[in-house]
Amino acid sequence: MKVGIIGLGSMGGGAARACVAAGLVTQGHDIAEAAMRAFAAEGGQAAATPGALAAQCDAVAVYVLNADQTEAALFDSGAAAAARPGTVFLLCATMPPARATAIAERLVGMGHLALDAPVSGGAAKARAGALTIMASGSEAAFARASVMLDAMAAQVFRLGPEPGMASRMKIVNQHLAGIHIAAAAEALTQAIALGMDPAQVIEVIADCAGTSWMFENRGPHIAQGDYTPLSAVEIWLKDLAIVVDIATEVGLDPVLARAALARFRAAAEAGFGREDDAAVAKVYARAAGLALPGVA
Amino acid sequence: MKVGIIGLGSMGGGAARACVAAGLVTQGHDIAEAAMRAFAAEGGQAAATPGALAAQCDAVAVYVLNADQTEAALFDSGAAAAARPGTVFLLCATMPPARATAIAERLVGMGHLALDAPVSGGAAKARAGALTIMASGSEAAFARASVMLDAMAAQVFRLGPEPGMASRMKIVNQHLAGIHIAAAAEALTQAIALGMDPAQVIEVIADCAGTSWMFENRGPHIAQGDYTPLSAVEIWLKDLAIVVDIATEVGLDPVLARAALARFRAAAEAGFGREDDAAVAKVYARAAGLALPGVA
Repeated sequence: MKVGIIGLGSMGGGAARACVAAGLVTQGHDIAEAAMRAFAAEGGQAAATPGALAAQCDAVAVYVLNADQTEAALFDSGAAAAARPGTVFLLCATMPPARATAIAERLVGMGHLALDAPVSGGAAKARAGALTIMASGSEAAFARASVMLDAMAAQVFRLGPEPGMASRMKIVNQHLAGIHIAAAAEALTQAIALGMDPAQVIEVIADCAGTSWMFENRGPHIAQGDYTPLSAVEIWLKDLAIVVDIATEVGLDPVLARAALARFRAAAEAGFGREDDAAVAKVYARAAGLALPGVA
Repeated sequence: MKVGIIGLGSMGGGAARACVAAGLVTQGHDIAEAAMRAFAAEGGQAAATPGALAAQCDAVAVYVLNADQTEAALFDSGAAAAARPGTVFLLCATMPPARATAIAERLVGMGHLALDAPVSGGAAKARAGALTIMASGSEAAFARASVMLDAMAAQVFRLGPEPGMASRMKIVNQHLAGIHIAAAAEALTQAIALGMDPAQVIEVIADCAGTSWMFENRGPHIAQGDYTPLSAVEIWLKDLAIVVDIATEVGLDPVLARAALARFRAAAEAGFGREDDAAVAKVYARAAGLALPGVA
C-alpha cells in the first residue's frame, strides 16, 4: 500500500507524518519546496508533481485550502489523469457539499474512487494520527482508503454512501468552531480588561459549562501571546462564508455566524489575516485600547 | 455541622440533596411549598422561613436567581439577622461582581462570614454533588464553608480573598455559555434544515473541534424536542445583560454576546421565556418555517 498526500501544511503535513509513522510508504507534494524537504527529512518521499505522486499511489489525500485548490490539485495538475484506475482520492479540504459531490463525480467518471473526507482535530492531532474524519462515499472507496484512514484518524465517522454528506457535517462543525473562536477571543479579552489572569480563566472555565474545544485550544494562544498560524484568520473568511451561504439557501438567518464572520473580516482588514485565528482577539483589544499579553 | 439552602430550584434543590447524600443535616427553604415537601420526602428538613433556617445552621447557601433575590432572601426575610454570629453565607447566584462585594460586606458588618460562591455544571451535577464552584472570600469563610463546599462540589476553585473575584469569573463563564447555547441552536437548526439527523450531528460534532459543553448538554434537548426548563431562556436575558453592561464599562463591544442576547430576547418575546434555554432554536426555526423535532 502506497499513499500520497497533496498539501503538506499544518494539517496535511501532520497527516503525512502520521502515515509514515504507521509504516506506510508515503509520498508528499507541496507547492512549497521547503515543506517537501522537511517531509523528506522525516521519512517521507517528496514527489515533484501531483501527477508523479498520484501515478504511484493507491490512495491519495488532498489537504489543500478549498474546493478550487482541490480541483486544481486533482485536475489542472494532471494528478487524476496520471493515477491508475481505481485509485482512491480523499477530499480533505473544507468545501461546500455540492462541490465535494461534483469533484467526486468527476473522479468516478475517470475510473477512480472518491471519498468525501473532511477532518477535524487541529495540527497536533493530525501529526499524532489522531484526527476525527467525517467520511462519506461508496463501500469500494471506504475499503480502498481504510489503511490510510486508520493511519490518519483516531475516529472515522461513516456518514453515508454519497460524497457531500461528510462535507455537510464539516460545515456544521465549522459553523460552531468559528463562532467559538470569536467567543473565546471576546470573553478572554473582556477578562483581561477586568484585570483577570487569562491563564487562570482558561484553567477554571475549562472545568465549567462555558468551555468549548476552541476555548481550550485557542485560549492559550491569547494568554501566551502566540499567534503562530496553525489555523489562520483567513480560513474563517472562507469557511464562515460557506456557512452563511448555505444558511441563506435554506432560509435561515445565522446571526451568530455572521457576527463571527464580521469579526474575522475585521481582523483580516487590520492585517492579521495570516496570523493564528486567535488573533481575532486583537480586534477587540484595539478597539478598547487594551494591551494583550505579548502584543506590542 | 448543620447546613441550609435557600432556594430549592434545579440547582439549589440538587445541591441540597447532595448535602443530604453527604450525611449533613440539611435544611431547605423555598417560596414554593411543593419544592419543600419534595425535599422533605428525600431526607431534608423543610424550614418555614429563611430566618428559621438561618438561625439553626452553620453554613447557608443562597441559590436564587440574582442579586436582588439574594438580598431579599438574606436581609428582607430576616435570615441574616436571625443567624448566629459567625455563620457563613455562600452567595451562589450569578450577579454583577460589585453586588457580590456589597452583599458580602453587609453580611460581614453583621458579624457573619461570606463567600462569593457561584457555581457551574447544571442540574445533574448539582444533584450528584459534582458542581464546579468558583469561590472567593476570607480564609475564615472558606474554613467554615469547607464541609458544605465538599458536599456540593467536585471542584472548588479558590480565586482570591475578596468577594467579587469569583463572580467576575462566573460572568466570563456566562459570557461563553450564553453564546454557545445560541450557537448550538443556530447550527443544529441549520443541520435540520439541511435534512441531517440531529442526533447523529451531536454524536459526530462532540468528537470534533466544533464542540462545546453547552452543545453537548443542550443539543439533545433540541434533538429530542424536550424543552423542560432546567435552565430557562429568561436566565440569559439577565446574565447576558450583565455581560454586556460590564463590557461597556471597560470599553469593549461584545458583539457576539449582544447577538446571543438578542436571540434570547426574541425567544422570550415569542413566549418561550420559561422554557429550557435550548428553545432559542425555535426562534431560528419559526423564521425559516422549519419544523423542529417534537415541536408542533
